[in-house]
Amino acid sequence: MNKIKIDFDKLEGIIPAIIQDAADGQVLMLGFMNREAFEKTVKTGYAHFWSRSRKKLWMKGETSGHTQAVQEIRIDCDNDTLLIKVIQKGGAACHEGYKSCFYRTLNKGTATVDGEKIFNPEDIY
Amino acid sequence: MNKIKIDFDKLEGIIPAIIQDAADGQVLMLGFMNREAFEKTVKTGYAHFWSRSRKKLWMKGETSGHTQAVQEIRIDCDNDTLLIKVIQKGGAACHEGYKSCFYRTLNKGTATVDGEKIFNPEDIY
Repeated sequence: MNKIKIDFDKLEGIIPAIIQDAADGQVLMLGFMNREAFEKTVKTGYAHFWSRSRKKLWMKGETSGHTQAVQEIRIDCDNDTLLIKVIQKGGAACHEGYKSCFYRTLNKGTATVDGEKIFNPEDIY
Repeated sequence: MNKIKIDFDKLEGIIPAIIQDAADGQVLMLGFMNREAFEKTVKTGYAHFWSRSRKKLWMKGETSGHTQAVQEIRIDCDNDTLLIKVIQKGGAACHEGYKSCFYRTLNKGTATVDGEKIFNPEDIY
């Protein structure tokens, strides 16, 4: 065991956090955390992120109810990326209604939807 | 199917690429790609990245031989993150010799090594 200093400097105050389904290992999304979002995530046990577009802290699921309960936090060899295993409430991480934000395969510049759809966004937002 | 414009602008020319083991779903690492690295990845079928510290394009495994053969490329709902499923040659993605760069659990500011070690870095580099 050793003390870790998370490297928030490489991206000017934020760090990428990969969110993975703790049950089946599916990668659900990638978000960015600043120090405050990371600390809120640890303190509350629910994933919080820094929105680069809205320039504000937000809790995943604060609007949809589809929160992410943290099961495990891992850090990479350079201390500059997090991997967070979660239980995804409602079964869907993506605001488009899919289980994973990565619901499309990319091939020769075109995307094919093949992800699992859980809800209709119009019913939620 | 629809044409995709990958968003390289949010991080000034680079995009995060999550690398996942195609066989068992373990997240191996996160790297950044600029447009050239992405195009080389697609063209060659092997993961290429942009090194932010060395400011150069590199192929994963170019020194160690531990290359990553691309099986599938996925893109997220915002077109600003890639998820790439690979076959990891040599069984280890991390230059520290572990299967995954996320070989440590983070808890209360301390890290505990619990990842699978595949090789001794001194034997390779």
